[in-house]
Amino acid sequence: MPPTPGTAAELQALLGHDFPLSAHLGARVSVADGRQVTLRAPLAPNRNRSGTAFAGSLNALATLAGWSWVWLRLREERILAESVLQDSSIHYDRPVATDFEATCDPPPAAALERFLAALRRRGRGRLRLEVRLTDAAGRAASFTGRYVATTPPHMAERRRVE
Amino acid sequence: MPPTPGTAAELQALLGHDFPLSAHLGARVSVADGRQVTLRAPLAPNRNRSGTAFAGSLNALATLAGWSWVWLRLREERILAESVLQDSSIHYDRPVATDFEATCDPPPAAALERFLAALRRRGRGRLRLEVRLTDAAGRAASFTGRYVATTPPHMAERRRVE
Repeated sequence: MPPTPGTAAELQALLGHDFPLSAHLGARVSVADGRQVTLRAPLAPNRNRSGTAFAGSLNALATLAGWSWVWLRLREERILAESVLQDSSIHYDRPVATDFEATCDPPPAAALERFLAALRRRGRGRLRLEVRLTDAAGRAASFTGRYVATTPPHMAERRRVE
Repeated sequence: MPPTPGTAAELQALLGHDFPLSAHLGARVSVADGRQVTLRAPLAPNRNRSGTAFAGSLNALATLAGWSWVWLRLREERILAESVLQDSSIHYDRPVATDFEATCDPPPAAALERFLAALRRRGRGRLRLEVRLTDAAGRAASFTGRYVATTPPHMAERRRVE
């Protein structure tokens, strides 16, 4: 299913409503299509003591980028489920001295298929996503997150009945 | 050196000034003494789509708790240095449904000694800190961060000259 026009605007509204911190990060959806999600944030509200980007802001933007990727994919697959981050790790290569972006690319196809199959069969699936953080000078940090999606209880009930 | 009275207030002011996002997290210093740093944040501004705490907020508060621990210790040791987070990992055990805290306890004594000795000798040291995230029901997530502290260039110069 191709992405509907206005997907980025829809995701933007959802992030602002469902994750109030995202507004304080200044998070804007740059790309949200069937393949990739890129969120962008300005340096100023996210600065640290050195005037570069606060590690916690970089991590938060990456967390949202991965979450958004799952949200978009579940919507495209017409699976009603919610995802949360189970664990993550991040490596900061160097200071980020400009506005920055968090980009989530698709995971390996086999991993995605396993995730979707588990979610459809058992109402629960786990997906590992990689998010790269970049600034004007290129890659600055790398994030890996494991997201767990579950079908809401009433849907799981229906699934068992069907 | 025992903590000076008002250390928590001083740390609070510093976090607000040097990390603007901390005000949006609602981060408040609960404990800041020679041993422990505990930062507290309210649920409301940090809620996610499910009404529990956003993973990025938990991570950001933990990042600040570890940074604060290093800042306090360097001050007590009278070492002029700045620290940044090099990498971190976090595991979220369960949703956080109340206000929450991030507590950084001292690392093993031998690791702390190595860190301080490296910083004094070479102007650069690395320290692994563990931060536990708790809510009204107990531990909810565990964070590990590796902080790198460096002596500012002009101080390194003086160190070499001395």
